[in-house]
Amino acid sequence: MARIVQKYGGTSVGDVDRIKIVAARIKATRDEGNEVVVVLSARAGVTNELIARAKGLCANPSERELDQLLAIGEQESIALMAMALHGIGVPAVSYTGAQAGIFTDTEHTKAKIKMVDPTPVLGDLTQGTIVIVAGFQGIDDEGQITTLGRGGSDLTAVALAAAIKADRCEIYTDVDGVYTADPRVVKSARKLSEISYDEMLELASAGSKVMQSRSVEFAKKYGVVFEVRSSFNHNPGTLVKEEVAYMEQVVVRGIAADKDQAKVVVSDIPDKPGSAARVFRALADAGVIVDMIVQNVGRHGVANLTFTVPHADTARAVRALEPVLVGIGGGQVAVHERIAKLSVVGVGMKTHSGVAAALFQALADVGINIDLISTSEIKISVAVALDRADEAVRAVHAAFGLDKV
Amino acid sequence: MARIVQKYGGTSVGDVDRIKIVAARIKATRDEGNEVVVVLSARAGVTNELIARAKGLCANPSERELDQLLAIGEQESIALMAMALHGIGVPAVSYTGAQAGIFTDTEHTKAKIKMVDPTPVLGDLTQGTIVIVAGFQGIDDEGQITTLGRGGSDLTAVALAAAIKADRCEIYTDVDGVYTADPRVVKSARKLSEISYDEMLELASAGSKVMQSRSVEFAKKYGVVFEVRSSFNHNPGTLVKEEVAYMEQVVVRGIAADKDQAKVVVSDIPDKPGSAARVFRALADAGVIVDMIVQNVGRHGVANLTFTVPHADTARAVRALEPVLVGIGGGQVAVHERIAKLSVVGVGMKTHSGVAAALFQALADVGINIDLISTSEIKISVAVALDRADEAVRAVHAAFGLDKV
Repeated sequence: MARIVQKYGGTSVGDVDRIKIVAARIKATRDEGNEVVVVLSARAGVTNELIARAKGLCANPSERELDQLLAIGEQESIALMAMALHGIGVPAVSYTGAQAGIFTDTEHTKAKIKMVDPTPVLGDLTQGTIVIVAGFQGIDDEGQITTLGRGGSDLTAVALAAAIKADRCEIYTDVDGVYTADPRVVKSARKLSEISYDEMLELASAGSKVMQSRSVEFAKKYGVVFEVRSSFNHNPGTLVKEEVAYMEQVVVRGIAADKDQAKVVVSDIPDKPGSAARVFRALADAGVIVDMIVQNVGRHGVANLTFTVPHADTARAVRALEPVLVGIGGGQVAVHERIAKLSVVGVGMKTHSGVAAALFQALADVGINIDLISTSEIKISVAVALDRADEAVRAVHAAFGLDKV
Repeated sequence: MARIVQKYGGTSVGDVDRIKIVAARIKATRDEGNEVVVVLSARAGVTNELIARAKGLCANPSERELDQLLAIGEQESIALMAMALHGIGVPAVSYTGAQAGIFTDTEHTKAKIKMVDPTPVLGDLTQGTIVIVAGFQGIDDEGQITTLGRGGSDLTAVALAAAIKADRCEIYTDVDGVYTADPRVVKSARKLSEISYDEMLELASAGSKVMQSRSVEFAKKYGVVFEVRSSFNHNPGTLVKEEVAYMEQVVVRGIAADKDQAKVVVSDIPDKPGSAARVFRALADAGVIVDMIVQNVGRHGVANLTFTVPHADTARAVRALEPVLVGIGGGQVAVHERIAKLSVVGVGMKTHSGVAAALFQALADVGINIDLISTSEIKISVAVALDRADEAVRAVHAAFGLDKV
């Protein structure tokens, strides 16, 4: 007998038929003698519908009221799933975030989990009842409904798994695991049977859309081993866990491409202390997420700063920078939209040299130019032309032998 | 300055445009210097949509989970209305039943309000904030979401009005008040400017669909004066309040017809003590609501029992009666579907004789036969043929001079 948390996303509860299929899967898990907690998202599309209705009433809806509104999406999912389980004779109870003891701070639309009280969930589990919890939501100290922001349902699942000391946490998505590269781009991409938290984090931040970083960080912090797998089949997924010894034999674990980046070049700014700080302070204040950063000093004591930002943030970035450039006495801003960021990730890099060289060589061999380079302990990222990104991923995937077991 | 509770039904929050119209009305009430609490229903249709989805998953959904599911309807309404008010620059906050301090017992789908804690609502009102409360729902002592059953949003409004000592409670519906008879049937029907709780209760139980009895009973118990009016115009509505002296000059206040009744005749049952009790015990146990009851003893020591039940309950009534008749040693059951119940209501009846005679004469004058008769202190009801019901209402309306001011 094991205690298992299963999280199902919006497509898994998209309609009555899908709910029945998932209910049958949950029942099967219980029939094997396990205690089961299920975390659900809102059905696909409902959040966007609600936001559209909200925007029709108020250009800039209050975040408290948005939370009050959006929380109903998961509440619908959990009640329907409990009914579906009752319909096949399985005892089940649904809990909103508040009822499940998910306590957060008061930051509406992006609340952080402060504490999970496992008491209500544990009480039902010991009686053989399946507990269905609304993902993405919690309650603050004053009884206000909060939501956790993007990837919130995964976070609910991982946090609950930690709080109830679950043996397993299964994250069901529409992909059946973590691949060495996007299988739609690289035909020979392989599913990884396991991956370390750090590699998963680097892949997440490198544009692999399987999971948001924050849930992986939470899992790492509390040692929650979780498995990413598909609710559309019964294939084993990818286990995400602490790095283990034999992992180090693999130098590069996977490759991710992020096509949602634009390059911003701030050129000809006076090369004096504090210029760069003022540039990035202004971007941070405007809520722009900056990724790769490169600085080089040009002639005549002027410097160039180059960095990447998400596409959606480019206009905001430019608006934020204009007054800064006036303040520091010069400089121009230019935006280059058509780039992609390619990243190779692997804990083995820490102890192996030559990964960067092999990466650059692989790209050179197919004539792809490298625009920017940035590195972390277990990742190397390069910016390349957007229209050659897929080709670049395939070339690098082959060069590192990722298509071989 | 007054403290006002306004309740809007499902058609008033049916879409974004209607929500904006209602928001403007709420704003106008506040702009006159009033404190405003708004109680909302789920938008029209959403409850039936959710129930249909539930039934697709489970033939007989758990009442706890139904409440968990249905409560999202009002939660959507309140968040959207708060946003609509923000959109026109009015401070507003939305509260679920739980957040508004609506505490109930644990009877899911038909919970009773135990207590309303006015603290959260009063706190916002004193700061000039409009408080938008989800009708129909509450929370039990264990934090479970409950719903109040039919007419629940009206009840929320009346209960809140009592708890915060509101000066006025306005119930907005799709009719603009209480009429002397259904204006679709009687062209000369007049809107009543006021009516007593008891008359309103008798009209409600007599088939006038303006409001459920329980909200009127609650208002009577706590002395909440409320006004029934339309959200589609600005006409004054009907004030419902304690009986006042001058009301007594009016003998008959209004006429209602209930076309949703069937007559059940249980004939030839042994006329001995306990037979009637066993018949009605069986019906009560089967959840059948019995209305008019007439008993007469026939020849040879056998009795006939005649009563009316809602159409929807006839099959259930017959099923419940069959074993009883075997038990008491004889009798037949017959159902007559095509009847209507016509009721004349007025507190003035208490002190005036001759109302019954005038009623029967009015019907006789147009050749309408009377099938059953039952009376209360302020009401006389008769069963007539369904196909002559409208004609009967018009004749009685004229006979009591209700078309004259």
